[in-house]
Amino acid sequence: MPEDPARRQDGAQQKPSALLRELLRVPGGEHVDLSAYKTDATPAGPEDKAAALAATARMAERLADLQDRLYASSTAGDRRRVLLVLQGVNTSGKSGAVKHVVGLVNPSGCRIKAFNAPTPEEKNHPFLWRITNALPQRGEIGIFDRSHYEDVTIARVRELVPRKQLGPRYAEINRFEEGLVKDGVTMVKVFLHISYEQQRRRLLARLDDPSKHWKFDPQDIEERAVWPDYQRAYGIALERCSTEAAPWYLVPSDRKWYRNWAVGKLLLEHLEALDPQYPEAEFDVDECRKRLVEMP
Amino acid sequence: MPEDPARRQDGAQQKPSALLRELLRVPGGEHVDLSAYKTDATPAGPEDKAAALAATARMAERLADLQDRLYASSTAGDRRRVLLVLQGVNTSGKSGAVKHVVGLVNPSGCRIKAFNAPTPEEKNHPFLWRITNALPQRGEIGIFDRSHYEDVTIARVRELVPRKQLGPRYAEINRFEEGLVKDGVTMVKVFLHISYEQQRRRLLARLDDPSKHWKFDPQDIEERAVWPDYQRAYGIALERCSTEAAPWYLVPSDRKWYRNWAVGKLLLEHLEALDPQYPEAEFDVDECRKRLVEMP
Repeated sequence: MPEDPARRQDGAQQKPSALLRELLRVPGGEHVDLSAYKTDATPAGPEDKAAALAATARMAERLADLQDRLYASSTAGDRRRVLLVLQGVNTSGKSGAVKHVVGLVNPSGCRIKAFNAPTPEEKNHPFLWRITNALPQRGEIGIFDRSHYEDVTIARVRELVPRKQLGPRYAEINRFEEGLVKDGVTMVKVFLHISYEQQRRRLLARLDDPSKHWKFDPQDIEERAVWPDYQRAYGIALERCSTEAAPWYLVPSDRKWYRNWAVGKLLLEHLEALDPQYPEAEFDVDECRKRLVEMP
Repeated sequence: MPEDPARRQDGAQQKPSALLRELLRVPGGEHVDLSAYKTDATPAGPEDKAAALAATARMAERLADLQDRLYASSTAGDRRRVLLVLQGVNTSGKSGAVKHVVGLVNPSGCRIKAFNAPTPEEKNHPFLWRITNALPQRGEIGIFDRSHYEDVTIARVRELVPRKQLGPRYAEINRFEEGLVKDGVTMVKVFLHISYEQQRRRLLARLDDPSKHWKFDPQDIEERAVWPDYQRAYGIALERCSTEAAPWYLVPSDRKWYRNWAVGKLLLEHLEALDPQYPEAEFDVDECRKRLVEMP
């Protein structure tokens, strides 16, 4: 039996020096029962909202610097890039997290893609086709709001494909991601975990605000009605696809300030591990300076 | 003879209630001599850097609200979208302006594209092909860092196409843009205007900072050596392509704080003119609320 993950997350609050990525990482190959993970915990996080906002603001400069280096390095042939994948049930805060993360870096270096229900053209291709088309290029940070994991979660719950087609998809995803990693992609897969009650509050808040009605779809209620099925489907995806090459991270997301801090921190830790460097000039700097000064 | 444009811009500083778009608009069909436009002016702008930063921050909420409405409205079938086109010589601040504008809105609703030298595939297509592929979808704000105007500026200066192919491009661009406007695109074409001396300072600053060497290309000096040719080529493009449907705006850009304020303000004024509205709910709000509350 694995160590109780909720306790594991709480315990680490006393060791803030540990990497958040170690703490939030979902162990692969083990049964994942999402109900065992607290949704309102703040593992290794700031004490409260004010502290989190301050800590997140402090992260911004370092994040922007690392992203700038990653992009600069790509101009000298470095193929490395980052892909942040955000998954979670409706209202878990995926698009909020995208907005937040992009606000911390240079948006020009980000490639953002939200995956909605597949188009007829996309349906005519293998499920990884549209994913491949949206991948970040060298030096970029790609951000996926939903992803190929829809093809093993809603596809499982709603039986969009026969079960014998669904089964092989997990291994296919693992091979696909392993290939990306070998090609220089750092995968940061984040599951935003909220509670059943938190979703109710957020859906009701949308209904109470006419400027948010467009975000609401009565179908959201139908999906909520099969909440346990979704939790199970996400659990299976996390269990089978949290690999050595591309692990899953679970971020308790009932508290938006913790969610934003944690997603930023996970990204920061991965960029720090990449440690991208500005390339050396391949031209004569002094000669260029002289020419510029001497031009009329 | 047109009214002296520099004086026109200065004079308007006494009428801050006038729309900036009227003030910065380049009259089409008239000879455009860029040297007559001041690069360090701040027409209708805030008094100084501090005031500009404060004014820009105040703009952010209104901009984000309008963008949210534009996107929301698209979910109900509204085809309207905005395309901000940024042009200017090297170091004029195009990517700085992109970063700044996206920082004011929700990046998920932006479609950013930087156009570099055409790829072999792009060269095998008409010059507007890659532009068409990068257009914003309904509800989005597209932002082009360079654009099809490269195909009449660098293409003219460097004689990348025979002169008899170049000539028809201006009319082709006007027809293309008119078609976009008819299809619901609001074009905001902004020329960032800096001085010859300002470019020297910015290029030298890049050389003096090793973390900026990757942004420098000795070719930048070759392009600077034909500065008058570029000024002339931009002048011709502004003259021929500042149309009723898609006018050009000239933003004096020696002062970054004015440039950022002005680009934000131009975008704001166009969004205000669109006045997008949140769509009405097409479902029974009370019924949905009741179901949500009553769910176990």
